[in-house]
Amino acid sequence: MLPFKTLLKIDRRSTEAVFKQIASQLVLLIQKGILLPGGQLPSARILAAELGLHRKTIMAAYNDLITEDWIISKERKEYRVSTLLPIIKPRTYADKARSSYKAKSIISFDKLEHVPSLKTISSDFKVIVNDGFPDVNIFPIERVSSEYRRLLTHQHLKNASSNLNIDGCSVFKEALSLFLNDTRGLNIEPENVMVTRGAQMAIYIAAAMIIKPGDKVLVTTPSYFFADAIFRQLGAELITIPVDDEGADVDALEDVLIKNQIKLLYIIPHHHHPTTVTLSSPRRAKLLEIIATHQLAVIEDDYDYDFQYQYSPYLPLASGAHKGNVIYIGSLTKVLGPNFRLGYIISTPDFLSSAIKLKTLIDLRGDVLMEEIIASLMESGEFSRFIMKANKLYRHRCDYAANLIANELGHLVDFKKPQGGMALWLKFNEKYQLANIINRSAAWGLQFSGRAYFKGKDLPYDAVRFGFAAVNEQEIDFAVDVLRKITS
Amino acid sequence: MLPFKTLLKIDRRSTEAVFKQIASQLVLLIQKGILLPGGQLPSARILAAELGLHRKTIMAAYNDLITEDWIISKERKEYRVSTLLPIIKPRTYADKARSSYKAKSIISFDKLEHVPSLKTISSDFKVIVNDGFPDVNIFPIERVSSEYRRLLTHQHLKNASSNLNIDGCSVFKEALSLFLNDTRGLNIEPENVMVTRGAQMAIYIAAAMIIKPGDKVLVTTPSYFFADAIFRQLGAELITIPVDDEGADVDALEDVLIKNQIKLLYIIPHHHHPTTVTLSSPRRAKLLEIIATHQLAVIEDDYDYDFQYQYSPYLPLASGAHKGNVIYIGSLTKVLGPNFRLGYIISTPDFLSSAIKLKTLIDLRGDVLMEEIIASLMESGEFSRFIMKANKLYRHRCDYAANLIANELGHLVDFKKPQGGMALWLKFNEKYQLANIINRSAAWGLQFSGRAYFKGKDLPYDAVRFGFAAVNEQEIDFAVDVLRKITS
Repeated sequence: MLPFKTLLKIDRRSTEAVFKQIASQLVLLIQKGILLPGGQLPSARILAAELGLHRKTIMAAYNDLITEDWIISKERKEYRVSTLLPIIKPRTYADKARSSYKAKSIISFDKLEHVPSLKTISSDFKVIVNDGFPDVNIFPIERVSSEYRRLLTHQHLKNASSNLNIDGCSVFKEALSLFLNDTRGLNIEPENVMVTRGAQMAIYIAAAMIIKPGDKVLVTTPSYFFADAIFRQLGAELITIPVDDEGADVDALEDVLIKNQIKLLYIIPHHHHPTTVTLSSPRRAKLLEIIATHQLAVIEDDYDYDFQYQYSPYLPLASGAHKGNVIYIGSLTKVLGPNFRLGYIISTPDFLSSAIKLKTLIDLRGDVLMEEIIASLMESGEFSRFIMKANKLYRHRCDYAANLIANELGHLVDFKKPQGGMALWLKFNEKYQLANIINRSAAWGLQFSGRAYFKGKDLPYDAVRFGFAAVNEQEIDFAVDVLRKITS
Repeated sequence: MLPFKTLLKIDRRSTEAVFKQIASQLVLLIQKGILLPGGQLPSARILAAELGLHRKTIMAAYNDLITEDWIISKERKEYRVSTLLPIIKPRTYADKARSSYKAKSIISFDKLEHVPSLKTISSDFKVIVNDGFPDVNIFPIERVSSEYRRLLTHQHLKNASSNLNIDGCSVFKEALSLFLNDTRGLNIEPENVMVTRGAQMAIYIAAAMIIKPGDKVLVTTPSYFFADAIFRQLGAELITIPVDDEGADVDALEDVLIKNQIKLLYIIPHHHHPTTVTLSSPRRAKLLEIIATHQLAVIEDDYDYDFQYQYSPYLPLASGAHKGNVIYIGSLTKVLGPNFRLGYIISTPDFLSSAIKLKTLIDLRGDVLMEEIIASLMESGEFSRFIMKANKLYRHRCDYAANLIANELGHLVDFKKPQGGMALWLKFNEKYQLANIINRSAAWGLQFSGRAYFKGKDLPYDAVRFGFAAVNEQEIDFAVDVLRKITS
């Protein structure tokens, strides 16, 4: 007999049942050729004695392996490794080549040169300041995990399978529309909702339905980089208007509309990305007028509306009167963190019925299970309470970071405290080289994981988004301290 | 004091902690105006006595509500509802309109008329026969659920956040490339892998990189419907070649290449969709020659390679010598079921570095947690063993359904038993009207949830894909019995 006591290692703290552990290790021994086809296995009683386990545990492992054709038994007494192993052994081509995937492709394809490659962040830094993500440390792990366990049943999988749910599962669309009506003063029904993988897919789908190559799309400058990249990818020409302390320049916008045939306006009225400015109330009113007069199609990207640090925040444009011209896009990812990508498009049913078709071509179904988990947290009120908790924490961190930076780094950066969101837009004093500061910070263990925005034709200064939501007071202290040290 | 014993309902079987239940119900009472701002709450001791709970439980609930600004306490003795409630109460527009989303959109947008709307299947049928999905009843719920619990930690969320993982998380790309090398004779590294949401997104991304409007794309007729729809959406002209019992007609393909400038070939060599035919060995060899000679770009869609009912299945084209011309696409969704959408593109690193950019524009990140769960099942060998188990079951159901249909329904349908996959391609006798048969089956409680393929210029007969994998013997009996009854 092989030394099974050494070969088979049981981990009693594992979540995997002991008989399953034995079965999988026996399969590995077969695959490695340690147990040979036709070779005899010890009886359940003997192996049980050898391993100090109950005979029934070994029986369960053997039975599993019999079901899967790994071993055969004679009258449940003698066990042998099968001679017809269930390993898929593919037929090889006569001229089996080395990998065809080593070289450069000779296919002619779009290189997407207008989109930069994103860097992967090493985790070897003491403190990483991102460009505006939530703090995953407050994520309600236990609740989500137990809802996952509760909902992941065969019956659930069966129900979810027989419905396509391309536009989102119905309980989630119901809960989400109530949530949006409550928090944003929208007045929508589930039929106005299409669920996507985050706001990014929502922008892509809406834009791809509206833009034809050569169309003009109006954006602020600067604007959310990956939205600009979508419009360029779809062949649009970008026409830009400036953004100042009151948000997008609505007078400039009106001028552009008079002189150009504009197919689409893309705008971020709350905590504009990247500048964090919120569009002022008079400009909002004027913009709604312009939209009505010019019958302008608008994508309103309201990606972090849920984080407002005032008692009475502005409503989205989408909640005003616009006859369906405003396609409203948002995301729960800013609430739940980047691991949970749930976004949505709010629009008229006819627009969505075509949007669903385009989504089908890109992504047949959403994550029904995650949608149901979030719907359940919305219905119980936990979701809203979680947002309040996060709001309170981020508001505090916003105040803390803003005060400290104003006091300690006045020589280096200029900024306005935003009305909400998760980042400060730090404009750097020309005297200092931003690239240099980023490199020297990294040497001190401080990494900015977002983009650095350099002075150019679209921006009259260097800047960085300082994401305060995911860093605690000590980490903010550290970051400010490093920036102060390397610039004094 | 309010009748808290009636107002606060504790569910002891709930997974939510009792103090959390109390806290959320108190918030609801505040929101409903039953507890008014400034109103006093009973002391913890009194409320505990009233509800038959420990005082500390009530304290925990009160402390949660204090943290979230719902209630205030004086020296932890007297508790009152806050007068500054943390409810986000948005400012409304002066001319608050009724919903702008009721009417038809006046935006000009692509209606995608070439894509039909998918029907939602009612679950009121005794038996639903799909068009080729796995049986979710064998899905390893316990293992996935416990891996989910093990991996969903704050540290995990933090790590996953700081890495973008657009092309898939590294442990999954590693495990997947080993799995594909083992099962498909590929010879790839993780750098050859990009993870997507199912095969659908993989086809969309690869096609969108290669096709420009007006390009000619070569497809079989019939072909996978949603791939055709992608190519049309991207502006391609479809050139077709027939498919017979040996798969795509490779001689016809060569003719087309001589007469046309073809940008891309889309082909499904294993269990062609919808006809289930597998491309014969001589044709595979010839096709690889043609690809080399014509430097033809190919998307090989190998969506259900993992289900082969022979001892020695054919390798994909991608495993042959093709100098990177074959973009290989597959999916784990056919293994795990439609709730778990994980697909992939295998190609050269330069092609993928651009594909990643396009994916960024469509879908910033994948589901890192799901990828890690599956990677863990791959590493332990459980994933392969699960596939073997499913294979055995589906092979049996394929035999069972094929025998029964051949014996009982010879007058109605004609088919060839496929070499693998999850469906039989039933060609219907012209004497019977397929639409009529589907309607009458539904009246007997039998629903075909896939598409009905009607005779037309692309197809010389009516047909339906009979998905055998997700129905057990009794359900197959029932389906065959209904079809027999309504046609005799």
